[in-house]
Amino acid sequence: MIVVESRKRSEVIDVTEEVRKAVRNSGVKNGMALIYTPHTTAGLIINEAESGLLEDIILALDEIVPRISYKHDRIDNNADAHIKASIVGNSAVIPVENSDLVLGTWQRILFVEFDGPRRRRVLVRVYEG
Amino acid sequence: MIVVESRKRSEVIDVTEEVRKAVRNSGVKNGMALIYTPHTTAGLIINEAESGLLEDIILALDEIVPRISYKHDRIDNNADAHIKASIVGNSAVIPVENSDLVLGTWQRILFVEFDGPRRRRVLVRVYEG
Amino acid sequence: MIVVESRKRSEVIDVTEEVRKAVRNSGVKNGMALIYTPHTTAGLIINEAESGLLEDIILALDEIVPRISYKHDRIDNNADAHIKASIVGNSAVIPVENSDLVLGTWQRILFVEFDGPRRRRVLVRVYEG
Repeated sequence: MIVVESRKRSEVIDVTEEVRKAVRNSGVKNGMALIYTPHTTAGLIINEAESGLLEDIILALDEIVPRISYKHDRIDNNADAHIKASIVGNSAVIPVENSDLVLGTWQRILFVEFDGPRRRRVLVRVYEG
Repeated sequence: MIVVESRKRSEVIDVTEEVRKAVRNSGVKNGMALIYTPHTTAGLIINEAESGLLEDIILALDEIVPRISYKHDRIDNNADAHIKASIVGNSAVIPVENSDLVLGTWQRILFVEFDGPRRRRVLVRVYEG
Repeated sequence: MIVVESRKRSEVIDVTEEVRKAVRNSGVKNGMALIYTPHTTAGLIINEAESGLLEDIILALDEIVPRISYKHDRIDNNADAHIKASIVGNSAVIPVENSDLVLGTWQRILFVEFDGPRRRRVLVRVYEG
């Protein structure tokens, strides 16, 4: 299990190397990795980790899901974070070959925090096949 | 196979317990569950099932994909439903341990109807590994 | 591996038959197919391939993620393409039965180009189970 400590309300954190290590430690040579975050106000994206782009992703999602008044906000003032998480999704699946992730040149595994700062978890499961 | 009967044009329906039962009945102790809906105007989300939030998700997607005039509407007046389904996705993958889903505290499996009312299907496949 | 040649900046290309052939050639009778594109400015969607709808999907994503000035654009003028790819996702998972994809009546596997024209790759992995 990977632990991620976010420091802002919204933030993108590159977890590729931690996932890669978990894949290596699994002992599976060929198969599929499932990367799964068990939270409802955070997500996972596979994309480029260029620092400007990481800010753009957060700003674009703030535009797409503005922080207007939602019904859930009467209970917990974070409905926008739940909706953003629903759009980006809470898992990623990646082929594994020779005990490593099959990632494209620019692909990185990005944990996306929408309601931080918080201590978050990312599970990595590797299936042989 | 799980059958879902939606009662409105857009509606979120919690299917967690039905999926959990299918996982138990599969006989697989450890592995991965694939939850898959074979429709093009409905989707699957993993998020919290608080009743206000379920309404917020529908309203937010209506804002994000407004019901303007699309080319597909000349054939079938539901292009917005196809686009919303494309954004949220039609599947979910969840680790399975001890014959149960590994879900976070607030995570539920939510079927999202975008062009109801209809009778819908959700497939559950469990892979050992 | 499937090679896709896009001809426009944004374009949806149906790759269902190529994926189906790869599934058949894998020799796996029952299990799961992972369709994965190793790019960061393209994605995969499962939806209907009606020609009007394919244009609607592109237009709707252009509305959702307008081509405003992003920080990443100073490095490479395609931040909107990365953000769209992050929203739709770069993979699809589909059950396999009797050496074929379990697709709904209207479901097709759609490669979505956001920064073409380019030569693109789509990987297909089939896991038995």
